[in-house]
Amino acid sequence: MEARRIHHLGVAVDDLDAAVTTYERVLGARLEHRETVPDQGVEAASLRVGEGRVELLASLGEDTPVGKFLAKRGPGMHHVAYEVADVRSALTELAGEGVELVDEQPRRGLFGLEVAFLHPDAMDGVLAELVAHG
Amino acid sequence: MEARRIHHLGVAVDDLDAAVTTYERVLGARLEHRETVPDQGVEAASLRVGEGRVELLASLGEDTPVGKFLAKRGPGMHHVAYEVADVRSALTELAGEGVELVDEQPRRGLFGLEVAFLHPDAMDGVLAELVAHG
Repeated sequence: MEARRIHHLGVAVDDLDAAVTTYERVLGARLEHRETVPDQGVEAASLRVGEGRVELLASLGEDTPVGKFLAKRGPGMHHVAYEVADVRSALTELAGEGVELVDEQPRRGLFGLEVAFLHPDAMDGVLAELVAHG
Repeated sequence: MEARRIHHLGVAVDDLDAAVTTYERVLGARLEHRETVPDQGVEAASLRVGEGRVELLASLGEDTPVGKFLAKRGPGMHHVAYEVADVRSALTELAGEGVELVDEQPRRGLFGLEVAFLHPDAMDGVLAELVAHG
């Protein structure tokens, strides 16, 4: 498997509006998308930082994945997403090599992306996401 | 200030050799540089992931910055580095806007880069590094 690039860095934040303003002001980031996804318990903003991208994630409640992360760790880096050509074939290849996965099948992520998460134990404590433009 | 891109993601690891192998195997990463910097207490490897870059950081002792991070948080994402045209002028601009800095002057970082860190409080809990090719 060969990842193409870092698609985005996912950052958990307490206040989405304030965080968007911080990234615009400090890094000159440009808001690309913004989306609330109730069934994932998340409100998210995608910002371009030059050719890079940061995904800011705010929780819609304490019992959501991002809410639990914030309660345990506080705001900070949540995951890193690597762009691949095809998520399904990447998962098949990694599963065959014994890499521990969270998602065994691609699923619909934020902003229309096709995504799957690897288990943090597979990547030295880093939650890695595979992403392809669906 | 306008950052150009995500220069690299910095990841703290317990075992540098094992982590390099993981990134090569799982993401098809290619080792770019490797360096031991005793006065920073770190052994580091820079890997290209397609057009992206991950910097793996292992500690040379418990009383080093990375050693303290590992003791407190365990292995995982440590910082994100944004590439800028010029670190000194970026710092001047950010200081003028009241952005909290760790380094008020550029300093020599790993792999010959010119770097400066912003305070995590400035970026919602994320340790951000500004990087320019010196």
